[in-house]
Amino acid sequence: MGLEHIKALFEPRSVAVVGASREPWKTGHIILKNIVEAGFKGKIYPINPKATEILGLTVYPSVSKVPDDIDMMVVVVPARIVPRIMEEAGEKGVKAAVIISGGFAETGPEGAKLQEEVVKIARKYGIRFVGPNCQGVNNPHNGLCASWPLIKKAGPLAIISQSGTVAATFEIWAEREGIGISKMVALGNRADITEVDILEYLGEDSNTKAIGMYIESVSHGKRFLEVAQEVTKRKPIIVLKSGRTAAGARAVASHTGSLAGEYRIYLAAFKKAGVIPVDSIEELYDVTKGLALLPKPKGNRVLIITSSGGSGIISTDYSELLGLKVTSLASETAEELRKVLPSYCIVRNPLDLTGDATAERYDVTLGRVIKDPNVDIVLTIFGDPIPDANNVVEKYYNKGKTIVPVYLGGGDVEEKEKALMHSKGIPVFPTPERGVKVVRALYEYTLHLEKVRRRSLS
Amino acid sequence: MGLEHIKALFEPRSVAVVGASREPWKTGHIILKNIVEAGFKGKIYPINPKATEILGLTVYPSVSKVPDDIDMMVVVVPARIVPRIMEEAGEKGVKAAVIISGGFAETGPEGAKLQEEVVKIARKYGIRFVGPNCQGVNNPHNGLCASWPLIKKAGPLAIISQSGTVAATFEIWAEREGIGISKMVALGNRADITEVDILEYLGEDSNTKAIGMYIESVSHGKRFLEVAQEVTKRKPIIVLKSGRTAAGARAVASHTGSLAGEYRIYLAAFKKAGVIPVDSIEELYDVTKGLALLPKPKGNRVLIITSSGGSGIISTDYSELLGLKVTSLASETAEELRKVLPSYCIVRNPLDLTGDATAERYDVTLGRVIKDPNVDIVLTIFGDPIPDANNVVEKYYNKGKTIVPVYLGGGDVEEKEKALMHSKGIPVFPTPERGVKVVRALYEYTLHLEKVRRRSLS
Repeated sequence: MGLEHIKALFEPRSVAVVGASREPWKTGHIILKNIVEAGFKGKIYPINPKATEILGLTVYPSVSKVPDDIDMMVVVVPARIVPRIMEEAGEKGVKAAVIISGGFAETGPEGAKLQEEVVKIARKYGIRFVGPNCQGVNNPHNGLCASWPLIKKAGPLAIISQSGTVAATFEIWAEREGIGISKMVALGNRADITEVDILEYLGEDSNTKAIGMYIESVSHGKRFLEVAQEVTKRKPIIVLKSGRTAAGARAVASHTGSLAGEYRIYLAAFKKAGVIPVDSIEELYDVTKGLALLPKPKGNRVLIITSSGGSGIISTDYSELLGLKVTSLASETAEELRKVLPSYCIVRNPLDLTGDATAERYDVTLGRVIKDPNVDIVLTIFGDPIPDANNVVEKYYNKGKTIVPVYLGGGDVEEKEKALMHSKGIPVFPTPERGVKVVRALYEYTLHLEKVRRRSLS
Repeated sequence: MGLEHIKALFEPRSVAVVGASREPWKTGHIILKNIVEAGFKGKIYPINPKATEILGLTVYPSVSKVPDDIDMMVVVVPARIVPRIMEEAGEKGVKAAVIISGGFAETGPEGAKLQEEVVKIARKYGIRFVGPNCQGVNNPHNGLCASWPLIKKAGPLAIISQSGTVAATFEIWAEREGIGISKMVALGNRADITEVDILEYLGEDSNTKAIGMYIESVSHGKRFLEVAQEVTKRKPIIVLKSGRTAAGARAVASHTGSLAGEYRIYLAAFKKAGVIPVDSIEELYDVTKGLALLPKPKGNRVLIITSSGGSGIISTDYSELLGLKVTSLASETAEELRKVLPSYCIVRNPLDLTGDATAERYDVTLGRVIKDPNVDIVLTIFGDPIPDANNVVEKYYNKGKTIVPVYLGGGDVEEKEKALMHSKGIPVFPTPERGVKVVRALYEYTLHLEKVRRRSLS
């Protein structure tokens, strides 16, 4: 009943949608449609006693009538019917479920009782389930979008969220940028499966390179820490924790009935487990993307290369404010660069290639800088429409230094170059500030790994 | 020689582009093309001794040969030729110029001498000029894009910037969102026209509703403060100041040869003048957009309405962290809402309309909340694909409360709704965090206006 059932949740061979609907605006229709349109390769069984065909699929009146095994079941029926559905699913041998339906613990004592009943039935049959009152799960690597909106782009980022909207926002950004998602879970009431179960699974999931989390509280503090500590040895966990203020904590209690706890205690625990805390939804996305894809730096000495003087200065400020080291070029590097760059370029840190910089000028520069012993991280800012930026970054990416590209002010050329970088698995960030925050988090995680390594040696 | 010449810069009847080129990749071509494509209604005179026609326009060998007055001149020729061009322009009676060309004070003592010479000539003839070493100016209200990239969308936001890239990024965002720009100036070396001259002009410009600035230093501290103090009585000024750290200040000295000064002294001065400081390029854009378009709140009591519990909690945290008051609903409002809303909605602050909320549910809610005496600001978060959100917001916008819309997690529906809100002059923000930061800045500016009003009465 461990990871095997969680695996059935994300990688089922067959899915039933209980409460599948013909009405296009209903959740029971949207989810069925998304599973179909995401290209799920297994069997799909819509369940609805009042229909015979939806979206060209044969509809069954109940799960028990399906002439085949069902690995996973999505439930989109009124709350009061859910216990009966779960009983039937138990008899049928369903391994995992996603209960989308609301009307449980989040609504008061009666709903809580109903939720208890569902949990009891699930335990009896060994069904593991996400929810109730949730926005579902997504595994684009298997074409299983049992959620909304429709997100198809498969990639390296996992998102675990107590908020459906935060999860959806994260997925939409990852899809728009061509980065893609490995797994998404919107946890809802966490009556059975919690963030810890998912973390355990994602720790072993080879498609997941970094795990973003939005949480209002953790279900089991001690187990969360134990699991997180293990997982962060292999891949980064990035957490946006809300309910940090008194008013926020009261709102958490109304939202999911759980205790937000003191933020400073969370921060201390995160630090111990190597979990990276972030401050906003945007930062959650940026840092998860960056830590999934950037090579680890050898240290915190940052060199800023830019075509935009202003962006260089902003990056310098942010680097210093966030505790990174704005390094100096080795004298040989500076000498060489002065020979090959136009005289009006400013050869220091920030290294200003000025507004007429081309991809070739970046190439010439990165070619030297990549050998500089004073440099660990190269924040590489393209601050104009610079075609072919993606090729230059690719050429020097993962060649001993951590190159972190930022692209802004470039209009349509920028959009094209960013998409090309992302298609090559190179993350690029839209402002200097967001780029530097990612660098800071990457360095923090690298330090943690180093500490873990030393501890295991001693 | 006061505002009249600055006016000629943005609202000329005729423009000469000195150094207009036939080669599509050259700045001298791009700027000419952008002026043409932006739909400039006045006369356009390309100047180039080696061409007769570019982009279908008659080319003149020099400004002196143009058979008409020239109000404004864009200069894109090598630095050493600029003094001669300025002499000619002076003889011709040109009122204002934009010197794009680099190779002046930013390159060292020789360039500084050349720059001095240009200033001397300009003073002799009374020409006012932006630059040198700059990315130009834009006035989409007159179709005058004497800059790059091509930005055509006219709107209420002005941007004054010491960085061409920051200005371009701001313009691109404003255009993409359908908000638009009133004026853009990339200042460059500020040899003549400075941010203060532009501020003075924009203070009187009826198309400008808010002024965003990126600065590394101010040219004349005292005059800046005097002018800012006057302008902020009529419209907000939002400033991103870089060179805040020691390393940042050193980078400023290399970029524009000016002293960054201590940030805390800037902050004190900003506060006195009612200037709103911001922390990032994104925040500069968000706050300028919000302050241009949002009605002023009567106080700092925030109510959060949301379809996304998580977004509600994040907003609550941010509101409290930024010193806003997370208010309580008046008991009558709460009672009324409990009657009209589904029982599973959470009637408190944040007011959670839950994931199946429709535009109608927002309508019903806003209709009550708008009369609540405990509420000044309604952060209205759409955290799902909710069609018609724009109509509901429009219905209650500017009806006594300050409604601040946020839209996320809504995929294509969200994009459409955001565009509709922006087309109606209603600003909408992409995350709760960014929305709350705008609310905070708006409140700060409102307090300043209140202080000014009281002072003028006493």
